[in-house]
Amino acid sequence: MRRLTITDANFEAQFARIVNDRRESDAGVSRDVADILQKVRQSGDDALRDYTMRFDKHPLTADLTSWRIGKDQCKAAYDFLDKPVKAALEMAAERIRAYHAEQLPADRDYRDGDNVRLGARWSAVEAAGLYVPGGRASYPSTLLMNAIPAKVAGVERLAVVTPTPKGEMNALVLAAAHLVGVDEIWRVGGAQAIGALAYGTKRIKPVDVIVGPGNAWVAEAKRQLYGVVGIDMVAGPSEILVISDNKTDPDWIAADLLSQAEHDPASQSILITDDAGFASEVEDAIDLLGARIATRRTAHESWEKHGVIVIVDDLAEQAPPLANRLAAEHVELAVDDPESYFAKIRHAGSVFLGRHTPEAVGDYVAGPNHVLPTGRRARFASGLSVLDFMKRTSFISLDAEALKAIGPAAVALAEIEGLPAHAASVQVRL
Amino acid sequence: MRRLTITDANFEAQFARIVNDRRESDAGVSRDVADILQKVRQSGDDALRDYTMRFDKHPLTADLTSWRIGKDQCKAAYDFLDKPVKAALEMAAERIRAYHAEQLPADRDYRDGDNVRLGARWSAVEAAGLYVPGGRASYPSTLLMNAIPAKVAGVERLAVVTPTPKGEMNALVLAAAHLVGVDEIWRVGGAQAIGALAYGTKRIKPVDVIVGPGNAWVAEAKRQLYGVVGIDMVAGPSEILVISDNKTDPDWIAADLLSQAEHDPASQSILITDDAGFASEVEDAIDLLGARIATRRTAHESWEKHGVIVIVDDLAEQAPPLANRLAAEHVELAVDDPESYFAKIRHAGSVFLGRHTPEAVGDYVAGPNHVLPTGRRARFASGLSVLDFMKRTSFISLDAEALKAIGPAAVALAEIEGLPAHAASVQVRL
Repeated sequence: MRRLTITDANFEAQFARIVNDRRESDAGVSRDVADILQKVRQSGDDALRDYTMRFDKHPLTADLTSWRIGKDQCKAAYDFLDKPVKAALEMAAERIRAYHAEQLPADRDYRDGDNVRLGARWSAVEAAGLYVPGGRASYPSTLLMNAIPAKVAGVERLAVVTPTPKGEMNALVLAAAHLVGVDEIWRVGGAQAIGALAYGTKRIKPVDVIVGPGNAWVAEAKRQLYGVVGIDMVAGPSEILVISDNKTDPDWIAADLLSQAEHDPASQSILITDDAGFASEVEDAIDLLGARIATRRTAHESWEKHGVIVIVDDLAEQAPPLANRLAAEHVELAVDDPESYFAKIRHAGSVFLGRHTPEAVGDYVAGPNHVLPTGRRARFASGLSVLDFMKRTSFISLDAEALKAIGPAAVALAEIEGLPAHAASVQVRL
Repeated sequence: MRRLTITDANFEAQFARIVNDRRESDAGVSRDVADILQKVRQSGDDALRDYTMRFDKHPLTADLTSWRIGKDQCKAAYDFLDKPVKAALEMAAERIRAYHAEQLPADRDYRDGDNVRLGARWSAVEAAGLYVPGGRASYPSTLLMNAIPAKVAGVERLAVVTPTPKGEMNALVLAAAHLVGVDEIWRVGGAQAIGALAYGTKRIKPVDVIVGPGNAWVAEAKRQLYGVVGIDMVAGPSEILVISDNKTDPDWIAADLLSQAEHDPASQSILITDDAGFASEVEDAIDLLGARIATRRTAHESWEKHGVIVIVDDLAEQAPPLANRLAAEHVELAVDDPESYFAKIRHAGSVFLGRHTPEAVGDYVAGPNHVLPTGRRARFASGLSVLDFMKRTSFISLDAEALKAIGPAAVALAEIEGLPAHAASVQVRL
């Protein structure tokens, strides 16, 4: 953990180092991924069979259940859930659905002063693919957050791919898949699964958009296939920035900082406060709570390696500009007047206003998406939304009169650009 | 040119081949581009100086004018324009601005039934970079179409990069840059210019989003930097699909088909009609007009290599499903009732309704963006818009009561996911 004070002589250099520190591993898997994608493109299901045996020790056989998890299995997993868990999942799904339904964009269709009819019409993609990691990072909440926007957008076919190492499945993910109505679940993972979704195989039909988190191989496969299909933003390790005065309970802030740290050793938790004593209380609380939780090893490693505490003089004045430079995935404003801080924050994935809004409610039940830009990408990127599963078709309609009004300008421009057929296509109609 | 008839025994196979025919060259420049980007990242302006001398034969010296084109030069180019051209450019800019202003997204801020305050706030990126190719593909209309959405979005700094081979500049592009208020123009091109915009150098500050067309090196550089910055969609050769009955003047349709063909030998023009005789008249008209225009070599090569005519039995029934499979960049509906066709077309970049709406009006003056998805990407991608220069920050605000309502569900889900600090961050506040 590093502790910086804004009055330090070398504060600017230290803070700049934190801003520029990319915690993402460039694993150098680019060539291997390219090979895998090419094999899947050429050999389809045969390539999937080979890679799945090699990487997941799972045999894909003539028996279709070795390839696909059935809807009945998902329903059974859902029925088997404890009542409170089922209720919690349902509340989460319902709230996520409600928030995303309000994102649906409006079509446009209007006539302007020249009697030119213009507009834009939104429509959903036909098919979307969702990667669900195996092992520890396989979360039912991730399935809800990725699948529900697709369903709300109107995607007809939602295919999940997920590795089942040695045949093992995650019952909670299957239950969530049942809840949101996933159409297909394929037992393949890694770059090969992304290749199958993009190019299609005999068994797996191609999709138009691929979303969902994954390891370095999955991320690289998505990057390489960007343009063949649509993909969501490149995702790096999770981050939280907490801006707190000394009136919040230090235990609360400690839990918030640890809630990011426990995700991954590469996660980053940052506290900005104006009270060095309060900062020390938070540190102590982190040590106490951090020692007690089952995720302590990961949380400890993340906090030690990447944790930061910044002490400023004037919180309201100095914290927002620092926050904008960090452009963090999550920003908590644990202060009396969060609104005035929020007004000054331009770059952030999601903002949590006030002391009673821990980031974790956003991970599960608040409604907004928890798939958010990391690694300072909030400067230019947004969280996942229904728009990631939709596209816009613009349209133009002119009658002879309207063409007379604006056509000659098009002819003039086509001529100076040296495109005579463009000019002719307007000219012949005038 | 290929001519297909829907009643042909092998029609499906032939049409599928056209759908799957990617006309994009995978130039295999990936390794070279990676090298260039790394050099620019390491050596900044020195690398730019070396590459610009090598590729553009343009010396970047201690004299700043060798690096930058000044605003005074742009103004001079603008003042020097012929009056009709100036008026045409101004009309185009004004109409593009008006259409894109209506795209500005609305913020959200509401309370739901549990008294949870939720919302989303849009903001512009701070800086955008725009690539303008040198040579033949350097068009003032491209500058307008890429720069105006950025300006409308509220981007503070808009930097253009453009190669000036042997020092040569395109006066029309400079004039357009003056018209829309470009902030900086740098005389660098190729992958090295994209690297400079993404990483920044001593002279060129980094940007958040890079847009604009370019050759294979530029496209690959953008692809490799996706995630470091935001980029617009990968672009391939242009396409037009014209759906026409036999009541449109064949000369009109011939000019429309040639207006795409003249862009590039790899462009594709497709006509779907229900009258074989009409199709032959269009073919003849293409031969006639095609022989007369200055772009005849390009247009001829494109039409011969990639042109397609499809004869169907029932235009209204059969053309829209074929159009959806092609998912073309531009779709013209030269029929009596374009509306009923449009209702059935789901995948298209932009649609031109009725006989008096040649695609070329959309290239210049109609208002909607002419940067549109190519190569069947209209299945999942949209044309350039203000949204490409903006991002959304979601927000959540709970008071103690609201946390009581939804917090326990978050705790339940955090516990089943094995994330105890997430659970604690809610629990300690309850």
